[in-house]
Amino acid sequence: MMTPPLDLRSDTITQPTAAMRQAIAQAPVGDDVLGDDPSVHALEERVAHLLGKEAAVFMPSGTMTNQVALRVHTEPGDEVILESQAHIYYYEGGAPAALAGVMSQLIAGDRGIFTAADLRAVLRPVDVHFPVTKLVCLENTHNRGGGRIFPLSEIQALAQVCQTHGLILHLDGARLWNACIATGISPQAYSAPFDTVSVCFSKGLGAPVGSALAGSVAQMQRARRFRKQYGGGMRQAGLLAAGALYALDHQYDRLQEDHDNARYCADILGSIEGFTANAQAVDTNIVIFETPGRDATAMAQALRDQGVWVNALGGQRLRAVTSLMVTRSQLGSLADRAAAALASLSPTVPVS
Amino acid sequence: MMTPPLDLRSDTITQPTAAMRQAIAQAPVGDDVLGDDPSVHALEERVAHLLGKEAAVFMPSGTMTNQVALRVHTEPGDEVILESQAHIYYYEGGAPAALAGVMSQLIAGDRGIFTAADLRAVLRPVDVHFPVTKLVCLENTHNRGGGRIFPLSEIQALAQVCQTHGLILHLDGARLWNACIATGISPQAYSAPFDTVSVCFSKGLGAPVGSALAGSVAQMQRARRFRKQYGGGMRQAGLLAAGALYALDHQYDRLQEDHDNARYCADILGSIEGFTANAQAVDTNIVIFETPGRDATAMAQALRDQGVWVNALGGQRLRAVTSLMVTRSQLGSLADRAAAALASLSPTVPVS
Amino acid sequence: MMTPPLDLRSDTITQPTAAMRQAIAQAPVGDDVLGDDPSVHALEERVAHLLGKEAAVFMPSGTMTNQVALRVHTEPGDEVILESQAHIYYYEGGAPAALAGVMSQLIAGDRGIFTAADLRAVLRPVDVHFPVTKLVCLENTHNRGGGRIFPLSEIQALAQVCQTHGLILHLDGARLWNACIATGISPQAYSAPFDTVSVCFSKGLGAPVGSALAGSVAQMQRARRFRKQYGGGMRQAGLLAAGALYALDHQYDRLQEDHDNARYCADILGSIEGFTANAQAVDTNIVIFETPGRDATAMAQALRDQGVWVNALGGQRLRAVTSLMVTRSQLGSLADRAAAALASLSPTVPVS
Amino acid sequence: MMTPPLDLRSDTITQPTAAMRQAIAQAPVGDDVLGDDPSVHALEERVAHLLGKEAAVFMPSGTMTNQVALRVHTEPGDEVILESQAHIYYYEGGAPAALAGVMSQLIAGDRGIFTAADLRAVLRPVDVHFPVTKLVCLENTHNRGGGRIFPLSEIQALAQVCQTHGLILHLDGARLWNACIATGISPQAYSAPFDTVSVCFSKGLGAPVGSALAGSVAQMQRARRFRKQYGGGMRQAGLLAAGALYALDHQYDRLQEDHDNARYCADILGSIEGFTANAQAVDTNIVIFETPGRDATAMAQALRDQGVWVNALGGQRLRAVTSLMVTRSQLGSLADRAAAALASLSPTVPVS
Repeated sequence: MMTPPLDLRSDTITQPTAAMRQAIAQAPVGDDVLGDDPSVHALEERVAHLLGKEAAVFMPSGTMTNQVALRVHTEPGDEVILESQAHIYYYEGGAPAALAGVMSQLIAGDRGIFTAADLRAVLRPVDVHFPVTKLVCLENTHNRGGGRIFPLSEIQALAQVCQTHGLILHLDGARLWNACIATGISPQAYSAPFDTVSVCFSKGLGAPVGSALAGSVAQMQRARRFRKQYGGGMRQAGLLAAGALYALDHQYDRLQEDHDNARYCADILGSIEGFTANAQAVDTNIVIFETPGRDATAMAQALRDQGVWVNALGGQRLRAVTSLMVTRSQLGSLADRAAAALASLSPTVPVS
Repeated sequence: MMTPPLDLRSDTITQPTAAMRQAIAQAPVGDDVLGDDPSVHALEERVAHLLGKEAAVFMPSGTMTNQVALRVHTEPGDEVILESQAHIYYYEGGAPAALAGVMSQLIAGDRGIFTAADLRAVLRPVDVHFPVTKLVCLENTHNRGGGRIFPLSEIQALAQVCQTHGLILHLDGARLWNACIATGISPQAYSAPFDTVSVCFSKGLGAPVGSALAGSVAQMQRARRFRKQYGGGMRQAGLLAAGALYALDHQYDRLQEDHDNARYCADILGSIEGFTANAQAVDTNIVIFETPGRDATAMAQALRDQGVWVNALGGQRLRAVTSLMVTRSQLGSLADRAAAALASLSPTVPVS
Repeated sequence: MMTPPLDLRSDTITQPTAAMRQAIAQAPVGDDVLGDDPSVHALEERVAHLLGKEAAVFMPSGTMTNQVALRVHTEPGDEVILESQAHIYYYEGGAPAALAGVMSQLIAGDRGIFTAADLRAVLRPVDVHFPVTKLVCLENTHNRGGGRIFPLSEIQALAQVCQTHGLILHLDGARLWNACIATGISPQAYSAPFDTVSVCFSKGLGAPVGSALAGSVAQMQRARRFRKQYGGGMRQAGLLAAGALYALDHQYDRLQEDHDNARYCADILGSIEGFTANAQAVDTNIVIFETPGRDATAMAQALRDQGVWVNALGGQRLRAVTSLMVTRSQLGSLADRAAAALASLSPTVPVS
Repeated sequence: MMTPPLDLRSDTITQPTAAMRQAIAQAPVGDDVLGDDPSVHALEERVAHLLGKEAAVFMPSGTMTNQVALRVHTEPGDEVILESQAHIYYYEGGAPAALAGVMSQLIAGDRGIFTAADLRAVLRPVDVHFPVTKLVCLENTHNRGGGRIFPLSEIQALAQVCQTHGLILHLDGARLWNACIATGISPQAYSAPFDTVSVCFSKGLGAPVGSALAGSVAQMQRARRFRKQYGGGMRQAGLLAAGALYALDHQYDRLQEDHDNARYCADILGSIEGFTANAQAVDTNIVIFETPGRDATAMAQALRDQGVWVNALGGQRLRAVTSLMVTRSQLGSLADRAAAALASLSPTVPVS
């Protein structure tokens, strides 16, 4: 393949730009396990301020920030309520049970969104037969929901139910930045209803590594303890923090481009017979599309043979994600490549 | 209340008969932790033989036999597939996550029953993001499914899927005896497709305390280790084993009476305007009924005021369970008591 | 062997007497999981009162009462301080780590006893590198310490250290009754310094099965939850509770006989060349003795061949335990049998 | 303070050099969670080759490589045998119990070293009362043993015992490089007796972040799963891997300087009345010294006031560690500074 691939697998593939590499190379550092790293301190303060929380802790991944949050808020035998396709449940290697020892009670949402009424319906009385319901987790934007934005009003209604029933509320905000850019709602406003919020720097923002968890001082003290226990204490982590700071400073506003490009992708795919994609359903930088009559895994391979890299989600569904690794002009070739992929693969399965 | 209550809360309330008490009082015993109890040995051999397995281990509860089975078959971070209302998931205090560290993947069945196709649909490829699917658990009869019998042919089809995908199959057979009595299928035939089977003596059979787990010798060696670790090693447990042996000898066949009585209850309740109950849906000794327009918890209290003890299941659903504690002639008063309860409680909620 | 064996393996081998069996057979019972068992209620109230605590919970074993106590008081990653040979650490199947997720910090005591100074010496500052020290457990009498009594004054000094440092104090009182009989100190006085106390009915007291955990109402609510989760919820458990009540009423004072018999055993063994045993070191019903130059496991077998059943502890150490299963007159044959065993086994190992 | 401090707290404080920063800034990267990062691949292959193992996995910390190794080799309720001051037990936040659910059986070594006879002495028979002994961990060099080198012949004898008893052997080689430089034994020769080996790049080697675990392909597949579950999956981790590769290429041989400097420190401190330090006991880059009659924490502060940063170990013991952050010429001022610190702090505690 002469032309570079259109890598639409995920926004986790984003590579540091030359300017970000420069910022990383020049970062002041110290031993962060000993509390000495100025760049990590700067990032943690920045994040706490952005999200309107007392404190924040930097960690190597969003899985760790989410799973440490579960440990901060629960003990084994407690129950966590999650949307049925939540990243915390679906993609974190069984950590809720393995590390925190908590049961997952799932609510089947509408592309990742559920309501206060849904939550009330699954609450049970206190009884020795039941786990103790302790925590509710939302995801905004919702990955498997196609980058769906969680409406702030619904979050506030859910927070009200949590308050009434003494439940804690955590946000998996791995792509919170995208929700903010798309809605104009500030990170602080979106975080206000939550006890703790997890955010990520290595997805659309384009930093190489790292996430942060924000909450109260007491919660973050517990989080530091579990970060160390889980192996997330890093020494001169300021190099990574510098990448995250650079991303917040220079690559935040450009997320709008990713959103525009995602709708552009959906328009292109939706216009090709053999694919269905609805640009109206594209809230941010993720496009869920279908290929009726063709197996998603086979279709992903056919697209890859044409230089278009996407993920099969199972059945006849696929996912394309825009990021700074793909420009609008590069996407110009998507229509022809997708058509070629379709032509190369006969329909073999019943339309689902 | 002059007349004794109709206690239809559960078949766990069954009390030892005079003859069973006599058998218990005369049981030969030893220190079972040291392997010295002849009555426990006799029961374990009896159960292993009945279920067609190499060995069995006696434990204080069905929760322990099920949860030890989970530990025998899995390690933390594995996934267990269960019907969405399975006792193991629903009523065992969060033990799957707290003790075994396993994730529960739920399949919403039809009153507790799911199919081989349902199972195949939730299997995922091996990937570091996912827990490792290791175990499938069925429940027969299914408690929250209303004592529903799991058809043997469907079990065999599910076992075939497990074999193909290297999955282990465990049966929560707390009420397996009821399924056997109702279908005429032997415990051994019903257990054959499973790697391990849990059975209970303190439900319909009427023994005071105890369950057993059966499987291979190697599995039962592991089970003994975890029984000890969980605190289930009991000393002169032969007293309890003697109750279970007596129950198997003398109170097994009479389960048919409970089934007949359950259908009789459903007929009575179904004939009263204000209740809905379908005797056709009563496979064994559990009757699920509804009281449209009335809250189940309030209705359970109104019935209790009339000397009828049942469990509210949530919403407008209630559960009545027959057992040796209630005879057919005692049930004669159910119609009048239920009507009185209805009369005492006005409808206050929308019919669901 | 015509004469019955002298079974000195443990006081867990005690079998119910005819009168106790009668009491068990006549016990009023109910479904204890539903809170309906009057005999269990009576026992729990009796124990709470005896130990001067607000409430108590009946469980199938001392391992469960201890391990549930660990869960009540800690969360995973906490540290528990124990004597290096404590039953909780040594004999409970790895449950402290497997079930509670806690680290064990061991203090090498003097036959099971350690001091306030010993405790202070192992306390560490708060630091993310360290587990959080939360709980101290004592054992009275101390099993592997040879039934050693923990002096009340030392317990009080340890409780003072705990109070100063915000540590919780739990007693594994599986043989607390023996300490009380031997010292004249009441169970309540001995329990006062502790937050929770575990006691056992199936050792010297001679009941077939069961232990209880006592503490505050809030702690016991947590304990009930974990009892259910661990599989310790039993249905008509009143049969077992009745045995325990009978034992408290009728077999408590006779523990003095066991203590006298233990000293008698130590005198006999100490008088035989080839054994060393110090009757002065026999505080209660356990005799630790040595057989210099002979392997303990081989010696245990040689004694068994002569009808004397004891446990090898490793190296050249063995343990004999008196109980209601062996009377003073039966012990009359110990000298001859022990001498015969010695004669049958040549010394083969260096004196340790 | 005009002159820069002598920072002897740890070799974890080492900062990347300008050349290393350059290498980091230019590293080729990809999404390592998707298996796309060429720099991580290069490092993993390099480490596997160096240690003579089939494969290696890069992780954010030595705590994670050790704790993942524990999970790879054990299940909850197993027992791990460790030296009593092992980093895995002492400094990893209670993770052995919290994450792997394993019991720690400690052997009190001689400055971190124990023998095959010590190991044999703590092995127990299989019994439901005991955890299952599964794994032995050694630490080379041993941190709290003062950088003590584990003799290869003793390791081989221990490995022989492990083989005989079916035990797995893991090396915490956070400072294995120091042992290799000091003895001339290759990393591969030192690793050969072990099933898995953990090594660190962010201590003496001077890379900013990262450790690796090496072992068989099957073990490393499990390790990747648990790395993801623990939150150690990082995206463009090649930046960190590039630092580690640079360190192996350019900062490995210079560890000899650290060792020379450590002995020089010990000579200086040992020559000052008021300190005791034995240069003969300095195997590598760690100096344990005492300040008889003075509290270690107070002494550490007094030294810090003079610009000498060291760690108090408790009692009257302190630790100084040499690294690339302190040159021989800078150490020239140590004698005067240490003397001044001594002069500023009167002896207040009994000589221990």
